Amino acid sequence: MIVPRLIERKRNGEKLEPQELRELVLAYAAGQVPDYQMAALLMAVYFRGLDRAEMNALMDAMIESGKRLDLSRLPIPRIDKHSTGGVGDKVSLILAPLIASLGVAVPMMSGRGLGHTGGTLDKLESIPGFRTALTLAEAEKQITRIGCAMLGQTDEIVPADRKIYALRDATATVEVIPLIAASIMSKKIAESLTGLVLDIKRGSGSFLPELNQEIELAQAMIDLGAQHRCPVVALVTAMDRPLGHACGNALEVAEAIEVLKGAGPPDLIEVTFALGAEMLVLATLASTREGARAMMEAAIGSGKALRKFEEIVSAQGGDAGIVKDPLRLPQARHRGEFTAQREGVVQSVDPRTVGYGVIALGGGRRNMEEKVDPSVGFVITAKPALHVMKGQVLATIHARSKKDLDTAWSVLERAIVISDSGPPPLPLVSHRITVRGVESLA
Amino acid sequence: MIVPRLIERKRNGEKLEPQELRELVLAYAAGQVPDYQMAALLMAVYFRGLDRAEMNALMDAMIESGKRLDLSRLPIPRIDKHSTGGVGDKVSLILAPLIASLGVAVPMMSGRGLGHTGGTLDKLESIPGFRTALTLAEAEKQITRIGCAMLGQTDEIVPADRKIYALRDATATVEVIPLIAASIMSKKIAESLTGLVLDIKRGSGSFLPELNQEIELAQAMIDLGAQHRCPVVALVTAMDRPLGHACGNALEVAEAIEVLKGAGPPDLIEVTFALGAEMLVLATLASTREGARAMMEAAIGSGKALRKFEEIVSAQGGDAGIVKDPLRLPQARHRGEFTAQREGVVQSVDPRTVGYGVIALGGGRRNMEEKVDPSVGFVITAKPALHVMKGQVLATIHARSKKDLDTAWSVLERAIVISDSGPPPLPLVSHRITVRGVESLA
Repeated sequence: MIVPRLIERKRNGEKLEPQELRELVLAYAAGQVPDYQMAALLMAVYFRGLDRAEMNALMDAMIESGKRLDLSRLPIPRIDKHSTGGVGDKVSLILAPLIASLGVAVPMMSGRGLGHTGGTLDKLESIPGFRTALTLAEAEKQITRIGCAMLGQTDEIVPADRKIYALRDATATVEVIPLIAASIMSKKIAESLTGLVLDIKRGSGSFLPELNQEIELAQAMIDLGAQHRCPVVALVTAMDRPLGHACGNALEVAEAIEVLKGAGPPDLIEVTFALGAEMLVLATLASTREGARAMMEAAIGSGKALRKFEEIVSAQGGDAGIVKDPLRLPQARHRGEFTAQREGVVQSVDPRTVGYGVIALGGGRRNMEEKVDPSVGFVITAKPALHVMKGQVLATIHARSKKDLDTAWSVLERAIVISDSGPPPLPLVSHRITVRGVESLA
Repeated sequence: MIVPRLIERKRNGEKLEPQELRELVLAYAAGQVPDYQMAALLMAVYFRGLDRAEMNALMDAMIESGKRLDLSRLPIPRIDKHSTGGVGDKVSLILAPLIASLGVAVPMMSGRGLGHTGGTLDKLESIPGFRTALTLAEAEKQITRIGCAMLGQTDEIVPADRKIYALRDATATVEVIPLIAASIMSKKIAESLTGLVLDIKRGSGSFLPELNQEIELAQAMIDLGAQHRCPVVALVTAMDRPLGHACGNALEVAEAIEVLKGAGPPDLIEVTFALGAEMLVLATLASTREGARAMMEAAIGSGKALRKFEEIVSAQGGDAGIVKDPLRLPQARHRGEFTAQREGVVQSVDPRTVGYGVIALGGGRRNMEEKVDPSVGFVITAKPALHVMKGQVLATIHARSKKDLDTAWSVLERAIVISDSGPPPLPLVSHRITVRGVESLA
């Protein structure tokens, strides 16, 4: 393998053979190909793309570079959900126990906050004692025993993906659809799933600005899944405003528990049920999405889902007492209310401004070394299209200091726009994408 | 300076500010920017290009990264010639002493063989004792004393260019016109020239396959020169066949000496005089190219040019006795003649095949570690359009072994095509390019 020749061919718009890509990725993971050659190739891929066969070969090599979560002996379906990332998105915290309580294995490997978005790992770690750094062996054991584990990406799984991702971050080659698709799907295929549901976020708070790019990404991932007998269904959901009310780690855990108790914000429940229904149908535990919804309602109504949540928290060393007493979660020292400065209609609640606001309060990272304060954040009850009176409480601020309360106020002043009228918000769930095509739901 | 952001902007087709490029290149030369970020940027430049201001900033930063050849106190014009590289191209060996003998300072910084082409340094080093690794201080002293030095690129001059060039070679980013232009011109401007003549090779043996790319490269270099008060004139010359007869290091030195003695192949003399005339006009020592030719003929006729050659050879530790007795140059143990296998018209003498043939005989490098045998090569008297008889001698082979004579025979069988008729060869000197535009000469 002559690496400059491979780079040259991709640069010229030629196709690389699966075997060539495999050799290259494995040699790179082994430290035999220098970063600078991989960087040049990735930039050539930015301009020339990868076709389906190349993308698949890249993904396969990344999987081959490490170990897999071996769940193939489990006699039950294994389904995961993956979101492209948003603000206030605590759906994983609800869906994992809910779907596991219905007899599906849910190996949920999650990430940390990235850019303006939060991360499931950071949220889970706001539960006192909760350990997300499980080994693959520990995760396998726990999933076999209780049907679910919620863990971070370990060093054992897809190491080539981690190395390539760090390089992309430093070389302006992050926003490349085939590279994003192969990166996400390598982790999911390595979980040995029998099905995957994707939550493709859309709107100002999502990573890809254009709907057609989001659909292209979803279709690439659906194709990669199909190559590995892992059916994938994607829903396009709204991220032009935060999902639910709570934005901030411990606050989001508390809101997820609310939903598992049968309460919680309607938009959060709606998106959770829509994604959960796809999971149950993929698991063949329900034949229709309506039937799946009824199953989920029953699991919540009976307390089965909440008990599964307690079981997972306990299994991973966390304090399950937070379920009965949410005040055992970290509490911010200062609280303040944010009120409407005029009467009118909420035109927008900008998720990027809110997300960066949580980071400004200490609830996220500006660099990988920063420690996250799990207690801080916002509970924003205002939603687009809501008619509000002057002085009405639109949000509660949770902060470490009085000064931070002022910072948070000005963040919310920028994020929440009230006017006389405005365009309607995006539909909560607008498209459903499967191997058969794109279906408009709105 | 946030490097990923700079890469991203170039990737998106935006322009980088001169100050940004300067900071980046100097930080890269100082080891403060990693190779992988520079590699990604270079690949982005492959796709997005650099405009004149960016190219100039890149060149300036490369010059700033090292020392210059300080000749500004010299009261005489300082003119160099640069060729884009060919086979049998020993023009520098003739022009340097010839033009220096006429009162022009010629600071000639040359390279080694690259790909199928030979390098002036390798040719000079076939002269017993000749030392090309002069320091800048040594070169300055010698040029001040005798008007000429012929040296390699030292570690002192444009170190950023050397580092970037090595990276380009490993990342398939060599064939990028603004990068080629900035690389060549950085070295020339660092020589503190008052004028530069470019020999842009054209045809199957040149590095850029298309005439319009060659013209684009010449114009980029002319513009860079103009930014630094260094007028540049380019001639486009034929490289669809080797220049002159000799191909191989010591053989080419012997042929250069022939020309300095007033003999030698007509095509070599023609290209040498065409380039030399431009140098003398740029030096304002001649007002017309015809006048310049007469000066060169006189310098050769009187022996002045040959004495300057002896002076340079002696100054750099070489055996000037080779001039009177060319047998003191390294001689190959075996010689053989190559004869025409049929009567007909020589249709082509392919320079790439001949160039790689010299390497196969040991006269060039397959990798940077290989030692060059200066004695081997070809003297090919056959030229395109020549009518030849069956059995007529077309070339002499100089080789290390009998087996190599056979190898060389099959090389020449492939290189020299004889048929009943053929297309005419390219005109020897076809275009003249200056800051005012492109002039067709053929």
